[in-house]
Amino acid sequence: MDLDLIRQLALPNDTKIVLTVIDGLGGLPHPSRGRSELEAADTPNLDRLAADSLCGLTIPVALGVTPGSGPGHLALFGYDALKYTVGRGVLESLGIDFDLQPKDVAARGNFCTLDADGKIVDRRAGRIPTDESAKICKELAKIELPSVDLFVEPVRDHRFVVVLRAKGRRKLSPDIRDTDPQKEGVAPFQAEASATGGKATATLINTFIAEAREVINNRTSANGLTLRGFAQKPDFPAMPDVFNMRTAAIAMYPMYRGLAKLVGMTVLDGGESFLDEVETLKRRWNDFDFFFVHYKPADAAGEDGDFNAKVAALEAFDRSVADLRAVGADVLMIAGDHSTPTAMAAHSWHPVPFSLFSPNATPDGTNNLDERSCLRGSLGTFHATEVMPLAMAHAARFAKYGA
Amino acid sequence: MDLDLIRQLALPNDTKIVLTVIDGLGGLPHPSRGRSELEAADTPNLDRLAADSLCGLTIPVALGVTPGSGPGHLALFGYDALKYTVGRGVLESLGIDFDLQPKDVAARGNFCTLDADGKIVDRRAGRIPTDESAKICKELAKIELPSVDLFVEPVRDHRFVVVLRAKGRRKLSPDIRDTDPQKEGVAPFQAEASATGGKATATLINTFIAEAREVINNRTSANGLTLRGFAQKPDFPAMPDVFNMRTAAIAMYPMYRGLAKLVGMTVLDGGESFLDEVETLKRRWNDFDFFFVHYKPADAAGEDGDFNAKVAALEAFDRSVADLRAVGADVLMIAGDHSTPTAMAAHSWHPVPFSLFSPNATPDGTNNLDERSCLRGSLGTFHATEVMPLAMAHAARFAKYGA
Repeated sequence: MDLDLIRQLALPNDTKIVLTVIDGLGGLPHPSRGRSELEAADTPNLDRLAADSLCGLTIPVALGVTPGSGPGHLALFGYDALKYTVGRGVLESLGIDFDLQPKDVAARGNFCTLDADGKIVDRRAGRIPTDESAKICKELAKIELPSVDLFVEPVRDHRFVVVLRAKGRRKLSPDIRDTDPQKEGVAPFQAEASATGGKATATLINTFIAEAREVINNRTSANGLTLRGFAQKPDFPAMPDVFNMRTAAIAMYPMYRGLAKLVGMTVLDGGESFLDEVETLKRRWNDFDFFFVHYKPADAAGEDGDFNAKVAALEAFDRSVADLRAVGADVLMIAGDHSTPTAMAAHSWHPVPFSLFSPNATPDGTNNLDERSCLRGSLGTFHATEVMPLAMAHAARFAKYGA
Repeated sequence: MDLDLIRQLALPNDTKIVLTVIDGLGGLPHPSRGRSELEAADTPNLDRLAADSLCGLTIPVALGVTPGSGPGHLALFGYDALKYTVGRGVLESLGIDFDLQPKDVAARGNFCTLDADGKIVDRRAGRIPTDESAKICKELAKIELPSVDLFVEPVRDHRFVVVLRAKGRRKLSPDIRDTDPQKEGVAPFQAEASATGGKATATLINTFIAEAREVINNRTSANGLTLRGFAQKPDFPAMPDVFNMRTAAIAMYPMYRGLAKLVGMTVLDGGESFLDEVETLKRRWNDFDFFFVHYKPADAAGEDGDFNAKVAALEAFDRSVADLRAVGADVLMIAGDHSTPTAMAAHSWHPVPFSLFSPNATPDGTNNLDERSCLRGSLGTFHATEVMPLAMAHAARFAKYGA
């Protein structure tokens, strides 16, 4: 649904909506054992919640399309992920909790290893450890560029972020092509403008690259760098405006906190564990109308291809479900931003189990929160962007459309 | 899914995709016997393939909308049939294997019978036999028009195609209203421009009509003609570009070969039977990444309203399924461009059974390829334009969307 229509329909009310996102929730049957992670997990509380809920499967972006974390979450927040896009440089900055300003230009960097001719022999510089990357970043951040503040921040292993912040009247442009050729055996590209407005910034980036090469030239590995995904912080409509609600995010990981900030949520303390998150939810219950609560371990186990670890992560979540229910939301949803089947050890395009509990909803007879059961749920297979409209309806926060 | 998004996500790979289209695949229960054609047919190989596949039902254009062959196929190829339209004149030209050029203007013609006042008394001229039409077309093709090559080609019975091809600098326009009043008791219309650019071409058409009337004036039937669906060959994005694959079509009938050409497929020899088509598939296996394989007899029997003949056509197809599977596609799909229920003796809007086999897909427990079984499949009821994105995902030919 278009955000303008949501804005037009959104009414104030005293009701509370909780959107719990289990990252990478969906899975696939174990190749030999035949049951999916959710089917294999012992999750009596999730199953009881499903039995009290409406169930279905969400399509994060489109059938066949595997989303990254950005599009997967934006869709659940009601934002069409094909329209509201976030550049790589911005996402990486969010992921390290960098306080990106509206006019900054950010890029994702890789340290790489170059041969004597300047050609890339290892795109990831042997995945050098993060603390080594951090030391190099510290040196590179000392480089001075005219009328610009430079930030170079380590991410993990060979990955880092470069941010340019204009001083005075200088204006920066994100219209710059990747310098990363995405293959070995060739030299990194020079930064080039992808639109006429990008020329001055491209020159600055090339100055940075040249000076950086001087600094790391004598290293045996990580003696070069590539940059990609030049981007500025997008100016998205804010959830409080669009949905007419006070919105809060409870998440431990910077990436998800950052995504929530991009859509105007207030970011609350996620603490050290999901138990802390639920405590925060209780403590701040009266201050907000909508809460996005994020649970990461299922995705991490899925990416590792560890079936038993994903089962354990789901079972660990299950032990918090009673507490989540006890808070007393008018609409309590369990959703996933995408599937992360351990059989693929990666994000996937598969539709994701979803449940919506509300005193206003008649349970649909789905007795388990898993892929096959939710397929038979009353919500069917639907687009993740419809999750928030469904929540608004069940929270009696949508006006009638038309007379 | 938008073709631009497909183009953005499409990755090269070594995987092979086969899209088998059983024309008019879907049906309805026999009015007295209660089972549909697919349910009544003994198709052990199709059913085994379904049991090894993901199943669902495809909506060709939109719920309630009955597609012609053009939209039905374009949707399966990934092209939104409401956006990518093919004019009647072009489709008729494709159907007779006429080598339409990009700037030609084509129209579908009907011979009709006029009374002494020039009013239509029979819109189809008694459905005169094709060989008689062919003779008249040959005479009409001798008409000379200024700066234009004229083609008049018989189709079947009273139907024919008129094509104008500009010579030198002349430009032709398809913006011309139908001359067919679609009823009897009135005279055919003069050709009129539907936009200002169409005036000169409308004059040419009227010259043609006037001279044609001179030629056929003295006949007792088929002494008049009507023209409709003036159109030029559309300039569609090409599948090899959009999908990053070498694409081939294997079909016997000109219409389907023509539709495949419109989307940039290489058209291979369909031979004389479906067995020949499967042989071509095997022989050219290494030369392409994607194959569209067309099977016509189910639709023909459906259009004839012959239940037993459609059952027999489906059973005949079934005997080739083992050979199709043996070729070893990474994604093997069985689809239909639309339903052709024998109970209606016509195309219909009903969603069409669909199955997708892939080593990367977990079978969903659908044990039969028929309307009621596929309704319970894991793909649910979905738009035919999503068939290709699903295939791309299962063939590992789609990049992740967003970070």
